[in-house]
Amino acid sequence: MSLTMDLNSDLGESLGAWTMGDDASMLSIVSSANVACGFHAGDPAGILDTLKKAKANNVVVGAHVAYRDLVGFGRRNMDVAHADLVSDVIYQIGALQGLAAAAGTTVRYVKPHGALYNTIAQDRRQAAAVIEAMQAVGGQLALVVLAGSPLMQWAREAGLTVIAEAFADRGYTPQGTLVSRREPGAVLHDPEMVAQRMLQLVQQGTVQANDGSVVEVQADSICVHGDSPGAVAMAKAVREHLQAAGVQIRSFMDKAGA
Amino acid sequence: MSLTMDLNSDLGESLGAWTMGDDASMLSIVSSANVACGFHAGDPAGILDTLKKAKANNVVVGAHVAYRDLVGFGRRNMDVAHADLVSDVIYQIGALQGLAAAAGTTVRYVKPHGALYNTIAQDRRQAAAVIEAMQAVGGQLALVVLAGSPLMQWAREAGLTVIAEAFADRGYTPQGTLVSRREPGAVLHDPEMVAQRMLQLVQQGTVQANDGSVVEVQADSICVHGDSPGAVAMAKAVREHLQAAGVQIRSFMDKAGA
Amino acid sequence: MSLTMDLNSDLGESLGAWTMGDDASMLSIVSSANVACGFHAGDPAGILDTLKKAKANNVVVGAHVAYRDLVGFGRRNMDVAHADLVSDVIYQIGALQGLAAAAGTTVRYVKPHGALYNTIAQDRRQAAAVIEAMQAVGGQLALVVLAGSPLMQWAREAGLTVIAEAFADRGYTPQGTLVSRREPGAVLHDPEMVAQRMLQLVQQGTVQANDGSVVEVQADSICVHGDSPGAVAMAKAVREHLQAAGVQIRSFMDKAGA
Amino acid sequence: MSLTMDLNSDLGESLGAWTMGDDASMLSIVSSANVACGFHAGDPAGILDTLKKAKANNVVVGAHVAYRDLVGFGRRNMDVAHADLVSDVIYQIGALQGLAAAAGTTVRYVKPHGALYNTIAQDRRQAAAVIEAMQAVGGQLALVVLAGSPLMQWAREAGLTVIAEAFADRGYTPQGTLVSRREPGAVLHDPEMVAQRMLQLVQQGTVQANDGSVVEVQADSICVHGDSPGAVAMAKAVREHLQAAGVQIRSFMDKAGA
Repeated sequence: MSLTMDLNSDLGESLGAWTMGDDASMLSIVSSANVACGFHAGDPAGILDTLKKAKANNVVVGAHVAYRDLVGFGRRNMDVAHADLVSDVIYQIGALQGLAAAAGTTVRYVKPHGALYNTIAQDRRQAAAVIEAMQAVGGQLALVVLAGSPLMQWAREAGLTVIAEAFADRGYTPQGTLVSRREPGAVLHDPEMVAQRMLQLVQQGTVQANDGSVVEVQADSICVHGDSPGAVAMAKAVREHLQAAGVQIRSFMDKAGA
Repeated sequence: MSLTMDLNSDLGESLGAWTMGDDASMLSIVSSANVACGFHAGDPAGILDTLKKAKANNVVVGAHVAYRDLVGFGRRNMDVAHADLVSDVIYQIGALQGLAAAAGTTVRYVKPHGALYNTIAQDRRQAAAVIEAMQAVGGQLALVVLAGSPLMQWAREAGLTVIAEAFADRGYTPQGTLVSRREPGAVLHDPEMVAQRMLQLVQQGTVQANDGSVVEVQADSICVHGDSPGAVAMAKAVREHLQAAGVQIRSFMDKAGA
Repeated sequence: MSLTMDLNSDLGESLGAWTMGDDASMLSIVSSANVACGFHAGDPAGILDTLKKAKANNVVVGAHVAYRDLVGFGRRNMDVAHADLVSDVIYQIGALQGLAAAAGTTVRYVKPHGALYNTIAQDRRQAAAVIEAMQAVGGQLALVVLAGSPLMQWAREAGLTVIAEAFADRGYTPQGTLVSRREPGAVLHDPEMVAQRMLQLVQQGTVQANDGSVVEVQADSICVHGDSPGAVAMAKAVREHLQAAGVQIRSFMDKAGA
Repeated sequence: MSLTMDLNSDLGESLGAWTMGDDASMLSIVSSANVACGFHAGDPAGILDTLKKAKANNVVVGAHVAYRDLVGFGRRNMDVAHADLVSDVIYQIGALQGLAAAAGTTVRYVKPHGALYNTIAQDRRQAAAVIEAMQAVGGQLALVVLAGSPLMQWAREAGLTVIAEAFADRGYTPQGTLVSRREPGAVLHDPEMVAQRMLQLVQQGTVQANDGSVVEVQADSICVHGDSPGAVAMAKAVREHLQAAGVQIRSFMDKAGA
């Protein structure tokens, strides 16, 4: 029986006259598309276009929900009240579900974006709001979380299907957490080396940490980026290395059975 | 067999710290709530609150879709391209459907707001965009349209369930159209007189035009407003007069069988 | 020689179809108007209208700069990068200066709003951004700060004219800080009592703290609110008590000599 | 005595994480920068950065004011009420003046953007709003208008300094108006040919129309674009051809004496 791995990427992040990323290329590489919902990026027509292309490429679609912050691209921490955050997440999921229906596809999972992603990995209050929103919407949506973060346990206790995520181009500490962007080794740039690391992750469930030690990282999905030609090339390298080693690139939703 | 009539009103139009209207009062008067979707008014938490109250009052819910124009409250004409308008409407319907699911209710119809409402009553291109959006979303949504407008025919030809709407507080021309807001007699202020007019509308299918003649207006629903204490009082008067005459206040969706 | 005191209030906070506060009434009470700049509240036409009324009432005008957060009314903490915050504050001051010129008046000071006000009272990084913005704009703008906060010293060291502010309707701790809104006694509701407290503040430079002790509060201006009929009544009571005791209500800008 | 011509371009149109155009390159080509003011494009930090670069390149700065429409990039017609449009334009000019002061430069002119530019060229009501806004702000701002449009006369009658503008990459009709974008020959793509046309415009005050005839176009400034590598190359070709023929590239503000 062959190994499988999901590759996910952030897509649909253009806004009106401003383009971002190369959605068409990435949709030939990834198995899951985290599609912007209009709060940090994405206008409805652009989102719909990305959803139609995802459908055409048999790529599974998730809601890339975020803080309401276009100018900050959802990357700024915001102290959003519980009821507001619950409703903001529901609103975004619903909007994407509407557009997905129009594209002939379905929203299968939620992956929070940027500052919201980082915050709920550790912050129980905001994590509870996202979980509550997903339960309110219903429909067996899975939640993509940072592998090894406290959020994994909180989401599982709430009955959600949890997808643990690793990052192809990020360094890891000996504790299995991401190296902070303020420290050296946070972001990796060599496509060949990154691809080798991800093969080890899939085959052995480990990565080499920034101190040279080997650390366990259990991941159901690998996040790759597509916001520059170099990023697309790296994502392609990861896919090709995994496939060359006999790994099938398939959506985690197949594994999850959802 | 008794006569029935639907009363609808625009609700959920508060925005964060700014309140508008008296949703709680209006939800005890109307049978259908046109709920803002965030483009002209409404923040997700406020919208969800209104949807929960609508559910508690057995009031049917529709999507009050609009141009993206908070500062102009969706009242300014905008020349939105077809693909953009289609997607904008889908996005808003989807967002409201998500929040409605969280509130335990369902979006049953679409009523465009403000400048979009007025434009599509006459403009075939923008009308086609709204119709296409509703078809793309699916789910047998009805469309509320200005009684007697060209849009009625266009929407019916497209296979939509059409709800013809009259306005309680507006004057009518001998042609059955609304008196322009730039002319005298456009807006009526006497609750008693307005209530009498609406009873005649229900019982005889006519209203007295601004030249004294009697004009036929076939309406499935009457729009009442709730944006001031006087408006709420007028809405209440309309409801009470109709009920006193034996008219049942019921959602058009019951009649439509949808 | 008579005592003088400045009264300031947040104005221009309506947004398009949504109204907030009673600017006309407040402009007959206060000597300084903190006018919204469009980031947390205020649309340009509404702001201009408030500025014209301020001019007609000889009320001094300041820029009520805020985080870019209409839905949250600028009350949510946001982790805005230094360069962004500097530019956001300059942008808002400039926009208000343009509108003030059109109204025949001049922006004389800056009072940050909501979460930005609270944050920079204590947070040196964001405080530095606001100070840098004011220096970049030039023109001898004064900065209104929470009396007794660390910001007072930072702003003075930077060469700014600093206006220390007290809050009429807030309780004080024995340390001279505001009682947290999460604790009892944070907000005071009795206009008579509030007016007496403010007279003591002006005459003796002290207020009674929430433990009954007397604490020194050196204030150049007193903030009163106008967002409800009760708030307007309280503001009026403060003004009348002060005047009855011979205190002149005058802008701090007169005292500052700016 | 040598001929002079101004070259202007739209700059500062990035937005947060989204980049647009190559401001650094264009600022070495043009003599006037139409800088976005945040309504159709531009965030304050990005605008400030562009203003600093303009200052460093001795490029004169103008306010590229627009409808409030980020998603539509200010290209959609909007029916904005007079008072709103006046205030929106003042707000944008003021905001840019604030940022310009911080950059050590000055806003010298106003060039409306996109749909607003096209509308006021012909529509007296909206034109009057822009003119009123410029008069309210004061400071001798010049107005850049489509050469030959009715707006030229209206603005001159109001006492404004008017700068007539030609477009390097657009075809002209025998009447001296732009060929509609819906017709062939609207946009020109050959840098060599475009540069030759502009040299003729400067030397003879004429361009060849799309029917082969020669039409008079009196222009004080030529608009070049920088939103693609091809556009930058064309702008460079225009500058180099003009300079090779002895034409000085200088801001129209020198000629206007303002």
